Amino acid sequence: MRQSQLFMPTLREVPADADVKSHQLLLRAGFIRQNAAGIYSFLPLGKKVLHKIENIVREEMNRAGSQEMMMPALQLAELWHESGRWYSYGPELMRLKDRHDRDFALGATHEEVITSIIRDEVKSYKKLPLNLYQIQTKFRDEKRPRFGLLRGREFIMKDAYSFHDKQESLDETYETMKDAYSAIFSRCGLNFRAVLADSGAIGGKDNHEFMVLSEIGEDLIAYSTESDFAANIEMAPVVLKEEASSESPLELEKVETQTAKNIDDVSVFLNVPASKIIKSLLYMADGEPVLVLVRGDHEVNEIKLKNELSASEIVMASEEDAVKWLNTKPGSIGPVSVSDVKVIADQAVPLMANAVCGANEEGYHFVNVNADRDFKIDQTADLRFVVEGDLSPDGKGTIIFAKGIEVGHVFKLGKVYSEPMKAQYLDENGKNQIMSMGCYGIGVSRTLAAVAEENNDENGLIWPLSLTPFEVHLIAVNSKNAEQSALSDELYEQLKSEGYDCLYDDRPERAGVKFTDSDLIGLPIRVMVGKKAGEGIVEVKIRKSGESYEVPVSELKSVLKREWDKLV
Amino acid sequence: MRQSQLFMPTLREVPADADVKSHQLLLRAGFIRQNAAGIYSFLPLGKKVLHKIENIVREEMNRAGSQEMMMPALQLAELWHESGRWYSYGPELMRLKDRHDRDFALGATHEEVITSIIRDEVKSYKKLPLNLYQIQTKFRDEKRPRFGLLRGREFIMKDAYSFHDKQESLDETYETMKDAYSAIFSRCGLNFRAVLADSGAIGGKDNHEFMVLSEIGEDLIAYSTESDFAANIEMAPVVLKEEASSESPLELEKVETQTAKNIDDVSVFLNVPASKIIKSLLYMADGEPVLVLVRGDHEVNEIKLKNELSASEIVMASEEDAVKWLNTKPGSIGPVSVSDVKVIADQAVPLMANAVCGANEEGYHFVNVNADRDFKIDQTADLRFVVEGDLSPDGKGTIIFAKGIEVGHVFKLGKVYSEPMKAQYLDENGKNQIMSMGCYGIGVSRTLAAVAEENNDENGLIWPLSLTPFEVHLIAVNSKNAEQSALSDELYEQLKSEGYDCLYDDRPERAGVKFTDSDLIGLPIRVMVGKKAGEGIVEVKIRKSGESYEVPVSELKSVLKREWDKLV
Repeated sequence: MRQSQLFMPTLREVPADADVKSHQLLLRAGFIRQNAAGIYSFLPLGKKVLHKIENIVREEMNRAGSQEMMMPALQLAELWHESGRWYSYGPELMRLKDRHDRDFALGATHEEVITSIIRDEVKSYKKLPLNLYQIQTKFRDEKRPRFGLLRGREFIMKDAYSFHDKQESLDETYETMKDAYSAIFSRCGLNFRAVLADSGAIGGKDNHEFMVLSEIGEDLIAYSTESDFAANIEMAPVVLKEEASSESPLELEKVETQTAKNIDDVSVFLNVPASKIIKSLLYMADGEPVLVLVRGDHEVNEIKLKNELSASEIVMASEEDAVKWLNTKPGSIGPVSVSDVKVIADQAVPLMANAVCGANEEGYHFVNVNADRDFKIDQTADLRFVVEGDLSPDGKGTIIFAKGIEVGHVFKLGKVYSEPMKAQYLDENGKNQIMSMGCYGIGVSRTLAAVAEENNDENGLIWPLSLTPFEVHLIAVNSKNAEQSALSDELYEQLKSEGYDCLYDDRPERAGVKFTDSDLIGLPIRVMVGKKAGEGIVEVKIRKSGESYEVPVSELKSVLKREWDKLV
Repeated sequence: MRQSQLFMPTLREVPADADVKSHQLLLRAGFIRQNAAGIYSFLPLGKKVLHKIENIVREEMNRAGSQEMMMPALQLAELWHESGRWYSYGPELMRLKDRHDRDFALGATHEEVITSIIRDEVKSYKKLPLNLYQIQTKFRDEKRPRFGLLRGREFIMKDAYSFHDKQESLDETYETMKDAYSAIFSRCGLNFRAVLADSGAIGGKDNHEFMVLSEIGEDLIAYSTESDFAANIEMAPVVLKEEASSESPLELEKVETQTAKNIDDVSVFLNVPASKIIKSLLYMADGEPVLVLVRGDHEVNEIKLKNELSASEIVMASEEDAVKWLNTKPGSIGPVSVSDVKVIADQAVPLMANAVCGANEEGYHFVNVNADRDFKIDQTADLRFVVEGDLSPDGKGTIIFAKGIEVGHVFKLGKVYSEPMKAQYLDENGKNQIMSMGCYGIGVSRTLAAVAEENNDENGLIWPLSLTPFEVHLIAVNSKNAEQSALSDELYEQLKSEGYDCLYDDRPERAGVKFTDSDLIGLPIRVMVGKKAGEGIVEVKIRKSGESYEVPVSELKSVLKREWDKLV
């Protein structure tokens, strides 16, 4: 396409309210414009990238056996009442009334709609499993839209839903979707991890978020230095690497510790490392007291604790509860002699010897505390947060932390929607059963932003070949020069005929403006027709490496082929 | 794709509330499902057709130099206030508030949004013209949604907008868009006309609706038997074919006509044909009286009358006005001796000789009335509705009427939006000017329905090759028969490798069910593997012609190629 005709309004200045790179550059390079807070238009360059992402998503979803469909944005409130989400979803769900005063939701997600379709149309196990997807505009009224396309109020999502008679069938589709997602994000050139995430109230371990590693990510993930293991830090299991202490048990002793209460103070006061102190915390789990023990240098992971206790709610005990159950205030709590309260300890605690803990008496601690001899443990489990340097649970490498941008999510819903909405089928024996479901989402416009966020330098965007809006940027350095202009025109036709999607800067602008714009929009390969046009020599520049060199026109075809192959 | 895995819920019964063929068949064949009144989901087959239409639209729009972009559905109310449409658009515009209580419209159309973008980004004539389009979901809260996808509340539209500095540039783009639209609808296999339509308050003659000729159409169009001339019946010009009467003028005479008032009564009473009677009607045009004359066998076209008078409002005069200006009641009105009221006559009136007209006196008519001698005509113009048999205005053929479904619309907006919204540019002389605009819409989902409406028989849909969801329907007549099943599997692989998008009915259903479903979904070419599988013989059937014949497997490739070429 001739750039003189392209609607590509570039900006020299960094827009004031754009605070991350991708937002700044997509605005500056004329890929997007904001229409309202969190609401954007995709200009031609942005739309072309969006298309390429959508096509990759479509190809991989189709290959994985998912079928494309298209559901409406306007959703009857009745469906959301059936699932119970009309009230629980909160103000993020945009709502409106039609001219007949009927309530509608503006599609934030489509579990309700797809479930209503499938329950009406699928009555037999013979028609299962099914896996259906759509690529569609979604609406979520974020309280604080930010980071441009990364957290908007209207955005493009691919959402897929699967329906199953058997758990194994759901498991199989889940794995297929995970593989498809890996293929999609790989093809988009992203550095991502499939991260084990918390399933919340829904339960089950099969819930992965696809995270692009990024400094601006809002989620913290723990991943392995050497394998593809990755988990939300709340979810990362800790592999016990400590062995039992070889110290001989010494005599239990109660010592005065004055005002020292927290781990740091006690550590200093008694001159013992935090790792020799037992951190003792009283929780109320569904109203029952539970004494939780972890090592002083570890932090209790309440999600693990809650899952381990199979509790629906856990809260730190109040001062009143502490006094009631342990006869002391928080800050002096310890496990010694506790019998009426359940004691649950992190797996590292039984390995400690001659440890320090609170004495359930203000101003005192016990030293030389040893499990079994001095206190009971009712249950041992992995209760702490993972830390950097921990072993990777798969045995390969150690854990490091990074921030991530969530671009995809696969989730075993089970019967959370199919049960209240009565999505039933007849099984082999003619008995009514409730379907199991999975759901699988990709933030399509967010992926665009994530790619922009991870692929840029101080001069602008750097598109991977798979997503670039145009493949080759042909620049007539001085369009007013007849020789340059003629050769450029000729090369434009040649590049098109060779199958390149070519953007041809034929504008009557200064060379500096053209190069600045070219760097900004970031096409992978640039061909510049300048002063040596008369000699039949042009310059090729690779956006990513910055490498540039002169090429005789006669060799351009083979040079571009070579550079192309390097970039693929 | 294997049909056993395809989500394609077919229905045997005609759905009760579906009253046109396309709606019935798209539901029955499992292409769509209704989610709420006027709101539909596209199931996999429907989505595939939609995709093909979208791709045709995209290809032709790109070829015509339009650039694809994507604007949001959520539109700030402020923009609609600027254009004045927040109040004038009425309840069809769906509205909602966000969590901060700001008003938004749900995009029914995007003139406001695109104009706001262009006025912010384009400041110079050097950046014009621009032509931008999007393919997007639109929302219009129709009072009575009906005919399935033909008049829904949420639907898919291609809308394009062009911006210009010069009228000639707008004219050129308008013609380019008209050509692109013709290409698009031709490729969709539709029998359509580009129909001249009324521009309403906006003025200008450049407003064409693309109409598919259809009995269920809601608009009446007049088109030529021999050329591509077509116009909304309100807009079709009448070419004068009559010559002046050769009769010698007889003496003016006032006759008693008792209670005969309307044309039919007077015609019978005086035994003269309606074509010899002058129909005289008093209108008030912007408050001024105008006496309008047409031949008794013609009907006044008020749109032509209004345009001819350059009036902003015309109404038939009340009895009081008739008495006031002509001293008689409506029913006895005539032009003889009228001097204080403007007289405007259809072009056929001055050609009449010895005509009959009201005498401005109840119970009387004049006979042997002749223009000029007996009454004045201040203005002559084409004021009547076209009728079947009139000459086509382009001189080729005669006019016939048909009903049409509007699938596209091209419109020169001029400055209707750019003026109030201040979309300005600097011209060559550095002077501020207001841009001219065009807008160009295609109902994408409506086009799907129009194609279905026009391509079916009593057994189901009949897809044109360009839009068919799958190209070849391979049917294993009896999947439980090992020979048939093996040959079918083999042919499925073969057809795929030959590049056909093949639907393979591998279901363990009875042959009758398979054939019924196959007719219903209407793929163009069917290959049936039945009892002669063992002999290597299959049956080919063409959906449209119903023609079927046996083919040895070895010849299948060439037979399909031949049938394909016939269908293209």
